[in-house]
Amino acid sequence: MNKNILYNINFPEDLKKIKLENLDKLAEDIREFLIYSISKTGGHLASNLGVVDITLAMHYVFDSPKDKFVFDVGHQCYTHKILTGRKKLFNNLRKSGGLSGFPKPSESMHDAFIAGHSSTSISAAYGMDAGYRLQKKDMHSVVLIGDGAFTGGMPFEALNNIGRDDNSNVIIIFNNNDMSISPNVGSFAKYITGIRSKESYLKIKKSLENILGSSKYLGPKIKNTLSNSKNLIKDMVYHGNFFEDMGLNYIGPIDGHNISHLVNILNYAKQVKKPIVIHIETTKGKGYEYAEQDPVLFHGIPKFDKITGDPDISSCDSFSVIVGKEIKSMADKNPKICGITAAMTLGTGLQFLKEYHPDRFFDVGIAEQHGTTFCGGLSSSGMIPIFCVYSTFLQRGFDQLIHDICIDKKKVIFAVDRAGIVGDDGETHQGIFDVSYSLMIPNITIFSPSNYQECKDCLNFAVDNINSPVIIRYPKGSEGKRNESIKNQDRSINYTYINNNHNILVVCYGRIFDNVLKAYKLLFEQGVSISILKIIKLKPVEDEILNIICKYKKVFFFEEGIQSGGLGEHILYKSFEIGFRNFYKIIAIKDIFIEQGDINFLFKKLGFDAESICKTILNKEK
Amino acid sequence: MNKNILYNINFPEDLKKIKLENLDKLAEDIREFLIYSISKTGGHLASNLGVVDITLAMHYVFDSPKDKFVFDVGHQCYTHKILTGRKKLFNNLRKSGGLSGFPKPSESMHDAFIAGHSSTSISAAYGMDAGYRLQKKDMHSVVLIGDGAFTGGMPFEALNNIGRDDNSNVIIIFNNNDMSISPNVGSFAKYITGIRSKESYLKIKKSLENILGSSKYLGPKIKNTLSNSKNLIKDMVYHGNFFEDMGLNYIGPIDGHNISHLVNILNYAKQVKKPIVIHIETTKGKGYEYAEQDPVLFHGIPKFDKITGDPDISSCDSFSVIVGKEIKSMADKNPKICGITAAMTLGTGLQFLKEYHPDRFFDVGIAEQHGTTFCGGLSSSGMIPIFCVYSTFLQRGFDQLIHDICIDKKKVIFAVDRAGIVGDDGETHQGIFDVSYSLMIPNITIFSPSNYQECKDCLNFAVDNINSPVIIRYPKGSEGKRNESIKNQDRSINYTYINNNHNILVVCYGRIFDNVLKAYKLLFEQGVSISILKIIKLKPVEDEILNIICKYKKVFFFEEGIQSGGLGEHILYKSFEIGFRNFYKIIAIKDIFIEQGDINFLFKKLGFDAESICKTILNKEK
Repeated sequence: MNKNILYNINFPEDLKKIKLENLDKLAEDIREFLIYSISKTGGHLASNLGVVDITLAMHYVFDSPKDKFVFDVGHQCYTHKILTGRKKLFNNLRKSGGLSGFPKPSESMHDAFIAGHSSTSISAAYGMDAGYRLQKKDMHSVVLIGDGAFTGGMPFEALNNIGRDDNSNVIIIFNNNDMSISPNVGSFAKYITGIRSKESYLKIKKSLENILGSSKYLGPKIKNTLSNSKNLIKDMVYHGNFFEDMGLNYIGPIDGHNISHLVNILNYAKQVKKPIVIHIETTKGKGYEYAEQDPVLFHGIPKFDKITGDPDISSCDSFSVIVGKEIKSMADKNPKICGITAAMTLGTGLQFLKEYHPDRFFDVGIAEQHGTTFCGGLSSSGMIPIFCVYSTFLQRGFDQLIHDICIDKKKVIFAVDRAGIVGDDGETHQGIFDVSYSLMIPNITIFSPSNYQECKDCLNFAVDNINSPVIIRYPKGSEGKRNESIKNQDRSINYTYINNNHNILVVCYGRIFDNVLKAYKLLFEQGVSISILKIIKLKPVEDEILNIICKYKKVFFFEEGIQSGGLGEHILYKSFEIGFRNFYKIIAIKDIFIEQGDINFLFKKLGFDAESICKTILNKEK
Repeated sequence: MNKNILYNINFPEDLKKIKLENLDKLAEDIREFLIYSISKTGGHLASNLGVVDITLAMHYVFDSPKDKFVFDVGHQCYTHKILTGRKKLFNNLRKSGGLSGFPKPSESMHDAFIAGHSSTSISAAYGMDAGYRLQKKDMHSVVLIGDGAFTGGMPFEALNNIGRDDNSNVIIIFNNNDMSISPNVGSFAKYITGIRSKESYLKIKKSLENILGSSKYLGPKIKNTLSNSKNLIKDMVYHGNFFEDMGLNYIGPIDGHNISHLVNILNYAKQVKKPIVIHIETTKGKGYEYAEQDPVLFHGIPKFDKITGDPDISSCDSFSVIVGKEIKSMADKNPKICGITAAMTLGTGLQFLKEYHPDRFFDVGIAEQHGTTFCGGLSSSGMIPIFCVYSTFLQRGFDQLIHDICIDKKKVIFAVDRAGIVGDDGETHQGIFDVSYSLMIPNITIFSPSNYQECKDCLNFAVDNINSPVIIRYPKGSEGKRNESIKNQDRSINYTYINNNHNILVVCYGRIFDNVLKAYKLLFEQGVSISILKIIKLKPVEDEILNIICKYKKVFFFEEGIQSGGLGEHILYKSFEIGFRNFYKIIAIKDIFIEQGDINFLFKKLGFDAESICKTILNKEK
């Protein structure tokens, strides 16, 4: 029984031929495969190791794609992908044209719903459940959701709807591992741990039931109380947990690594004609010692050495780290500075503030709505909150940004990380919308620094000089090589202008500037000179920027973001208003979502690399 | 004791001079004032009548503005406004330049935080509480929040943060009236009603405590069970309600109309050094028979007859009603059509679908995030969901719109109501952002019909012909007078083109078209002829639209929405790309929020009325 079982398993029907007692061995094989495969490609490891057993049980009991599996956040779907015909694609995991790291309906009919952002799964599954029921189609929607997702409000909105619908069959597997990417925050996590610690919950409940049901054990006073308010006491004694209060059936907590037990429970849940929560306990990183010990490191990890567990992390700085350190040192001097994160302390570099000024550090959970309005409250009190948040995750706080921050001109600084292409996480994480969605909001100031120093300058400038909402956006990863050798630079906090008095002006912002500089040199070698206007303060648009543009015969606007509503269109109209009529071309992201892939590869595809920039300019020059 | 006490009360300090026993009379006076005043101006009545007593108690016990009152949604703040120097402004309630119907910090230092959208109050109050504590300032944050707000997820995000913070002093008054605007939906409301029905909760809890604490009343078996698992049983018996589970203190339920009792409780809460929930029960509309009987009608009401309770409602149709009826009749024929609302059944006209096809009608509560993703799930199952939602409330589902609907091109139709200026609700409710925030999202089709027939055509076209996300946006109120007399009309589902072969083209979309037509006539009388291009399908932009624009010497683009990222800027760039260089002027909403006021007044101010349109065109003609 030592041969690799996984070898012959490619589809759910193969799995169903395996005997129940052999599933543990299969789980071992899958874990081995995952560790080996991800050590070569990088990817999400710890969360996937944690849910191998439950995913096997799900596919053993249910029938995908007839039954719909919805994975919350979705980065824990690897075992599901292995079991649904995609095992051989793992060598191209998260690569351009390769396997997505998230469920993707366009990739496989077994991926019932898209995922990437947290806390959406119950809503999606309930929608499918309701829809299929209306069509009298027999199926089950099965959700796999972690406790981290419950730091967001959306699952509560969904439960509030499911709980009153006794005809729903949604099965919610609540995966309790005490972690989102980092350990969970908040009282709900504490409460859940409370349930978890009651190991003999069901047993004692039964025993108490016997006692209360049999009056001969009771003294006269308790009898009297009972007869006066029997239902009330019964209700109090049997007062369920949160899920039961919300009207769902509840089973748990259950060992999430005991496959045969999980199969039994899922078979039971299949029969229950009511929404049900199955509370399982798992260990993130299960089966790989290094990942069990440090699930945060092994959450999303680059290539690593399978034997030593050492990841291939270059020690270079990143925008996140620079911002995090700067916030910490600003906080050293200014007691009003606070740092806020939505469950991304390490991702945003806020660990430095957390260490030195824990009282002014707030991890609000995966709760960008609350986080944004909470910052509004902090600002009302006179503090200076800096909310470090990823570009696509701030989309969750969009209404709060408008309503609670901008209408009343609150001084809140949004340090918008992962602005622009992020690469291998794909469509759901590309930060290509933030310029458009913030440019339209009144009362906001937007900076898009292109290197570390500018980033720090913008932060300090915002704290010292701006008494209204500010966005400072910067990309994933590290700054490009600085190039100080170019002359005629006119610099301010608003823009950098490299004026060569020529016909051609290239306008850009953010890190694309690095490639424009490279193009500048390449073109120079070919005898073509260009001027460059790098905008740093995107909003409000300075008159000087428009005046510079109006001087040129040909203007090329490179924008690492969606074109519609972006800065290129906005500035064209403003320039047009003051008389500009010359050539103006925007090279931005046209009306499409951007798939996963290496950032350099995607830049080339989008025309943002130095060679493409040269080509664009030369084509027009001919 | 029959004289009007309110007469001499203008500020919180006046209130504090009143004896506790006279507060009931003052509450009566305030109710009389509210009924009289709102019968003359219109406004929110039922919710304000419900909270007169608790608001009096709040101001009696706490010291505004040192203590911060945060009103969730905010339409129940009238008594607070009366008590904070604004009684005399009620004759201009919700009028331009008059008193806002919502808390507005720029209006008074007693309005601690902006409100308008639901479910934000706890986050804001906790932010203030945390900020003032860091500054060692002594104060209390007091929230007044209704049970309706808990159908949204944001209060859960906030409680998850407050519940673990034992140093917080936030006082949350949970106003249970079983209503948001309409009766509440969902299992949380049911659960809360469950708490409410346990009238003797505290008494029995005490009695049980005595019994369990005194072993002489217990038989041997129960004693044995107790000694084996004392804490567990204790925990089960004392298992608290949801708020206690989340780590907050809880008192309730309490009669929310018993002022002296409320004063006592608030005085107690003031001493508790922990976050606390005070659960009160109130009657919406309290003290005015008609409003108690029909709190939905008297939620937001126009002028009405105080004696008969008859509101001044003209019986004309509205876009909402037309859309609601059309959805119902589409659903008659097509069993896949579903209608979804976020607690706005009547507001969006979905009552017709609800009546005839209750199984395909879904009121999800004030939960636009869930609502949006739920529609994605319904669509996955093959149903055709139509989510009827106000323009500014869809901002709450912005991330879900991008992530769960548009990436995977789900066929979901968003019937976006209240798109454009809404008038007296002011800044928080003006639907001026939806064109910009949807134009930037790939894979979406946007229609902006300008009359009822177009609205119905767009709905049917979307259902029959478009297999991807669609937005159909339309304004508050009713259509303008149709004008069929104008010749040379070229019509399609995409646009209407009135071609007079002249130099001047006016481009517009939505209801502004009515005023452009009026301007057409006025200008004609002055000897000036114009052509008109009314765009109906805003996205994707048809080439024909660009071709028409390119024919003209002067183009005026009128847009009832924010300029940045709007259609005017977008189309300029597209036209510019194909060679357009002539005059092009956008008359849209510049970078500002729009205050409350009569729609016609605001239209004039923004240059959208017929006279202003003429003026704009003639100015350039000179």
